[in-house]
This record gives sequence, structure tokens and C-alpha cells, in this order.
Amino acid sequence: MAKNEIPYKIYLSESEMPDKWYNVRADMKNKPAPLLNPATHQPMTAQELGGVFCEELVKQELDNDSAYIDIPTEIRDFYKMYRPSPLVRAYCLEKKLGTPAKIYYKFEGNNTSGSHKLNSAIAQAYYAKNQGLKGVTTETGAGQWGTALSMACAYLGLDCKVYMVKVSYEQKPFRREVMRTYGASVTPSPSDTTNVGRKILAEFPGTTGSLGCAISEAVEAAVSTPGYRYVLGSVLNQVLLHQSVIGLETKIAMDKYGIKPDIIIGCAGGGSNLGGLISPFMGEKLRGEADYRIIAVEPASCPSFTRGQFAYDFCDTGMVCPLAKMYTLGSGFIPAPNHAGGLRYHGMSPVLSQLYHDGYMEARAVEQTRVFQAAEEFARCEGILPAPESSHAIRAAIDEAVKCRETGEAKTILFGLTGTGYFDMVAYEKFHNGEMTDYIPTDEDLEKGFAGLPEM
Amino acid sequence: MAKNEIPYKIYLSESEMPDKWYNVRADMKNKPAPLLNPATHQPMTAQELGGVFCEELVKQELDNDSAYIDIPTEIRDFYKMYRPSPLVRAYCLEKKLGTPAKIYYKFEGNNTSGSHKLNSAIAQAYYAKNQGLKGVTTETGAGQWGTALSMACAYLGLDCKVYMVKVSYEQKPFRREVMRTYGASVTPSPSDTTNVGRKILAEFPGTTGSLGCAISEAVEAAVSTPGYRYVLGSVLNQVLLHQSVIGLETKIAMDKYGIKPDIIIGCAGGGSNLGGLISPFMGEKLRGEADYRIIAVEPASCPSFTRGQFAYDFCDTGMVCPLAKMYTLGSGFIPAPNHAGGLRYHGMSPVLSQLYHDGYMEARAVEQTRVFQAAEEFARCEGILPAPESSHAIRAAIDEAVKCRETGEAKTILFGLTGTGYFDMVAYEKFHNGEMTDYIPTDEDLEKGFAGLPEM
Repeated sequence: MAKNEIPYKIYLSESEMPDKWYNVRADMKNKPAPLLNPATHQPMTAQELGGVFCEELVKQELDNDSAYIDIPTEIRDFYKMYRPSPLVRAYCLEKKLGTPAKIYYKFEGNNTSGSHKLNSAIAQAYYAKNQGLKGVTTETGAGQWGTALSMACAYLGLDCKVYMVKVSYEQKPFRREVMRTYGASVTPSPSDTTNVGRKILAEFPGTTGSLGCAISEAVEAAVSTPGYRYVLGSVLNQVLLHQSVIGLETKIAMDKYGIKPDIIIGCAGGGSNLGGLISPFMGEKLRGEADYRIIAVEPASCPSFTRGQFAYDFCDTGMVCPLAKMYTLGSGFIPAPNHAGGLRYHGMSPVLSQLYHDGYMEARAVEQTRVFQAAEEFARCEGILPAPESSHAIRAAIDEAVKCRETGEAKTILFGLTGTGYFDMVAYEKFHNGEMTDYIPTDEDLEKGFAGLPEM
Repeated sequence: MAKNEIPYKIYLSESEMPDKWYNVRADMKNKPAPLLNPATHQPMTAQELGGVFCEELVKQELDNDSAYIDIPTEIRDFYKMYRPSPLVRAYCLEKKLGTPAKIYYKFEGNNTSGSHKLNSAIAQAYYAKNQGLKGVTTETGAGQWGTALSMACAYLGLDCKVYMVKVSYEQKPFRREVMRTYGASVTPSPSDTTNVGRKILAEFPGTTGSLGCAISEAVEAAVSTPGYRYVLGSVLNQVLLHQSVIGLETKIAMDKYGIKPDIIIGCAGGGSNLGGLISPFMGEKLRGEADYRIIAVEPASCPSFTRGQFAYDFCDTGMVCPLAKMYTLGSGFIPAPNHAGGLRYHGMSPVLSQLYHDGYMEARAVEQTRVFQAAEEFARCEGILPAPESSHAIRAAIDEAVKCRETGEAKTILFGLTGTGYFDMVAYEKFHNGEMTDYIPTDEDLEKGFAGLPEM
């Protein structure tokens, strides 16, 4: 096929799929700061981390040097059930916008978990199974990660305990039922099944929970139950490693057709999708082989990159997890109650935080009504109902394409479409009914969060 | 690639996609009986049908002779947004069942409408647009068809009015919001916007509606609004024609890898998926070129093939539509209140009815708890959360694969996986909680439906 005959959707063949993950840390001059023991403030050792995480995952977490790590055959076989994912040329959206820009998106929603989270879920579940563990624990907010992990555990015959933020548990009963379909046990958090949960319930009766609190409960459940470990769907270095499969496939597909992106855009909550999508491109940039504009898009209501501080912080509310150096709003930051979807974590991947700090990428914050406008515009053109999270990237991609219309530049824009919005129709309904509002935290709101940062 | 190196998912390239639909009627010795005018009992003329349907679709409806009909470029371009759909080898399910059978499924759920319905929706919307119409009307039950049509109309800039069975409108608000995202207007049926709706409301106050009633309203709305026509997502000959793209892609993919199915299985409500999936295979069978076992699977609670009569019947409750000769339970048949999902139409495609009557295919009815058991088993192995409708086919495929385990035969089983179950979690929840019950109509229940058949 000639290089200019680019199909609507580029599907790689299974033989073209990557057989190694790419570890962007190997090419970073300034490595991400190590996780610290919250009591001693000393770097966490492999042994300490091994009480919480599987052995192989601890190795991956601490490995700042290996550029490539083999993807085990069993994981590659699972990937083949839903990967390679399509790289789609958004011809219809381009036409609607009247832009000379070429827009591509890597669509990760074509699996039952409905998002990219499955890429790391199967890896983490595999290593747990391989270590002879009985099960894993985790937390979930919007539910994408919990769903993905439940699927992976069902496939491997591993027990799966999910702590689901109570407000989501109650407002998203269907997400809960999907997890139950995959055999997971789902507990609303905070719960009376853990010490930290009971403590929070006593202190804040009637609380609807938070991600930071659910993390604390899941970690406690893992370390106090023999044969269990804790797994996490974002933020960690190992997660970005697994998610590099997104970017690697994208790069292979683009190279195959001679496409070079000028701008790469991803939504950013904890950084799992963004980190995965950009990794091989960032690698080229770090090695001085190519240049790309890379843009992280976050909600204006939870602006860790654009308004946070680059500091060591707690990863969870209960302060049982290691400290991470990252852009953060403080572990006590309360996300806006009117905020739809995910991307509401107070911190950000240490890898991405370092790269942002070192000037390798930009960040911008967008308001949610503009995000839903973009979501609806995209759905009507491209026939995919996007998740609110993913729609942050759509918003920025449309904004950049409109700029191209104004300047006449035919830039190539690539963005990550992380998932589908089937379980977010309550938010869409609010948007349709004109009941959706925007929230931007005041400087005072942010100061309250920063006040809780640990003294180092 | 050697013929035995079969990938997990077979994706055709866009250039391998069919450019013509296949019209199985051309190869039928006994053609499906013509639609009749309900007043005169004479075959409907093209002119009469033109008041309800678009001109080009009337031609397709009446064309029993052309074996192939070109797919317009604009429709093929839209197809490329979500097609070719994958043909998947269910390796994991086979392993779980311990069967020597080879199981393949054609997965039609990888688009936002979540089902195969989009294949005909875009075709019908295209011809309406091409005729210069302003909009179309339709009905929807479970919501898959309404969603698909809304997407297609949004893409083409066509107005879309959906009459949604009231019980679904209330119980499936998310489906409604997806349609609104695509700009459709959604009215619960029966409504006071039509004469037939007002009449039904007066006669049965508090009724929660039925598909037959929503059809009557949509037809009335179409014929009484200038610039509008009515479109239907199943039963009609034209719909089976458009859905032949499913079977054609499947056949091309199987031929490419030298696979020949022994058994072909599809779920059957009005017949759109089953008719589309089997069409090229049935063509070979009709022409004596090959033989296949073809199995239609229907709910035991709405058993039109297995317990219905082959007779002329009304297509709708209001009796405003033409009469069709089909396997039917009578237009007055009330589907079981506990029945989840779609497949609850009283009749069946006239094409499939004739083929079944002539012995070219089998039919079986399955109870819904066994259907959900199959759905859950499939989800845990294959990573796709199936729609309840599709799960009828899964049930039969598993049953056949288990028979192969018992006999040691390595049969090749192909089934149609029509869609995803994201909007059916209420039913899944009932199943998980042990609250799902089965319902099989008594002979007396059926007699009541048959009593309403028109005298011919």
C-alpha cells in the first residue's frame, strides 16, 4: 500500500504488535524521585515495597535503567483479545471543523472494561498469579480501573477485592454490576472492613469517600490478608511502563504510513494514559532524535499540573502509602462535587511530573462544560461516545485544530481516546439539560490542600 | 501467512470489505410472500409503500431478483468508521469448555450504538437524505435501533424522531441520553402526539407500551409530517439486505483462512442479525454448493419460530402497517414482563420465515436464566460483556460445543455476537442477585395471541 493511502482505521496485524514495553525512565537524564518511606523519609527498598506489591512489579517500579522489558507471552496472548487497538484518522471531525489539520486518535475503548486500564490490569494480575498469590486488592473511583482489574482477574482465576469510592458505588450501580459479572467483590469505601475505614467513618460520619481513602483501605486489606497484594491503576512507574503499549503501537502504525505527529495530546489524571501514549515519542525527544509538542490536559477543577506544587506528598488519605514526589494539590484536596468522571486524583505520575518540571511537555486545564461540548461534537462526527476523561483530550485537539484553521497550518495532531462513556450518561444528561456547572478552585481552596503537604 | 496461522481476531483490510450487499431472495425458489394492504389484502404497490418508506428502500424491499446491490460510496465510507468488524476465535472459551470444537464469533458491538443495527441505520438514513427528506421517524424497544439511527442521522444532518416504548424510556434513561447526545428527539410511547397513541392511552390508561404500539405511532408521525418517512430496524427485506454485510465479511474472512463452519448460530427477534449473518452461507445452501446447519435461537418467552404460526399478520398494534406473512405469535401477544433485553417482537422476518418453513434452518428456544449463565461465562473468558440478545446465540454455541466434547467431534461453530450489554446491567444485577425468573407462555397464552390473527 502506498504511504498516502491511509485507511480510516489503522489496525496493525498481531505480528506487528510490540513484544516489549518501553521504559521512558531509561532515557531521562533526571530520573523520577524515588518513593520514600513515610516514617523514615528514606527511599523505599525492594523489600519494603514487596510487602505491598508483587515482586516482579517492585522490580519494574524501581528499574530506571532498562529501556525495554519483555512482555510475557501470556500477557501478549491476552492483549491479542483486544489489541492492537485502532489508530483512527478523524476525517469526519476534520471536515466538520473545516481545518487543514490532520487529526488522529488512538482508541483504547474497544474492550469491555471500556478503557486503556486493561493494559496494566492484566500485567499486574499476571505477575500476582505467577507469584502464587491468591488475590489482589485495589480501589476504584469512576470504575474503569476496577472493571479492568476484575476482567483480568476473572481470566486468570485470581480473587479480586475492589474498594469503590462510596459516592460512585451508589451513583454508578451498573459499574458495580459489571465488576460483579467478572466475579469481583466490591465494597463501598470508607467501610467498616478496615481500621483506616472505621477511623474515617468515625471522624467523618456520612462521608461519601474519596480515592485517597479507598487506596488506604485497599492497601490495608492487602497487607493484612495472607496471599494478597495491592495493585494500582495509575501514577506508578510500572503502570506507565505497561501503558507504553499504547504509544508503541501508535508509533509503529504511524511509521508504517509515514505519519509524524506535530502535537501529541492526552488527558491526565494520574497519568497512566498520557504516560503510555507519549512514551516512545518522549523517548525520541529525550534522545534528541525528534521534537514534538506534548500537551497534558487536566480538569480545571483538579489542576495538579497547572496549579499544583512539585513536592513530596502522601499518595493516600490514610498516609499508609509511600511518599511520592509529584505535582500535587495535597492529599487533603477535595475534588469539586460537581466534577464528572475521573481525573480527580490530587497527584500526578512522578515520571510525568519530572518531565513536565524539566520542560519536556506542556499542560493546560479545561472546564467541564467545554469538555462535554467537545464530547458531543466528537460523538456526532466520529460515532464514538467518549468518556468524560477522554473528552479532555478531545477538547484540546479541537482547539488546536481550530487554531490551524485560523493560521492555515496543516499540522498533524494525535490524541489518546482512552475510553467510552456508556457509564457516564448521568453527566451527559446534566449537560443536555443545561444543569452542568463549572468549578474552578480558588487560591484559598488550593492553599488548604497545600497546607497538608508533609514537612521534608 | 499460512492458512493455519489464524489470528485471535481476523480483521479484513478496508480494501477487502464487500462493496455490494447480497440479496438472498434472489436464490430462494420460494420467495417471501409480499406485504399486503391491510384494507384490501392486495400486494402493496411501490406507490403505496412510497408514502411510508423512501423510494430507494421501497425498490430494495420489492426486489426479489437482484442477487447483488451496490453499496453507495457514502455508506461504505461510514462503514469504514467501524467496519470491518472482527471475526474472533474464542480460544479462551474453547479451553474453558474443554471442547474440541472451534468456536468463532463475528463481533458487531464495537461501535457506539453497541450493536449491528448501525449497518442498516446508516443505509436507511442515507437514502432518506438522498431523497431530500427532512427527517425520519422510528420506534425503539431496548434502544439499540434508536441509538444506531440517531448516530446515522447525526452524521448526515437528518432529523430523527424516536418513539421509545414507555417502559424502556423509564427504565433505560441512559439509552435515552445517548440518543439525545446524537441530537434525536425521544418520545415515550404511547404518547399524546399521535391519534393512535391517544386512542391506546384512552383505552389502556397506565399502559407501559409495546413495540407494536410504538411502530404505529412512528408510522403515523411519518405519514402525517411533510418531508418525513418511517424507517424500521428489523423484519423487513431491506434490513436483511443491509445486514448481509455481516455475513459477507465473515465469509471473506473465513475463506481467506480456509475455515468452513459446520454450524452457524444467530439470535432471532425480528431477524436482522440472523438474516444478515447467514445470508451468503444460505445462498450457497440454496444453490446446492455447500451445506451448513443453521440455528435460530429465540427466547422461550417469545417463541415465534418454535411455537408461532406461519400466517399473514399485522406488523403493529394499531394495524396501520401492511400485513406480512411470517412466523408470528399474533400482534396482540404480550411479551413476558420479566423478559430482559430485546427479541420480544411478536413476528419474524418474512424471508427467514419462508426459509425456516422450507426446512433450510432450525430454531430453538432458550430460557433467560440459562442465557445469562452463558453471558457471564462468555464475559469472564472472552472479555466482552454481551448484550442479553446476543447471549441467546452464546447459549446455543456453548451447548453445541459441549456436545462436541461429549462426542469428540471437532466441529467449527460460528455465531453472531450482535452487541454489548452496557445498558442491560439492571438485568445482570437481577441475575447476580438470584432474582431472575424464567417464563414460558402456556398454550392458552399463545391461543390469545393467535385469536387476533387477521382473517384472510
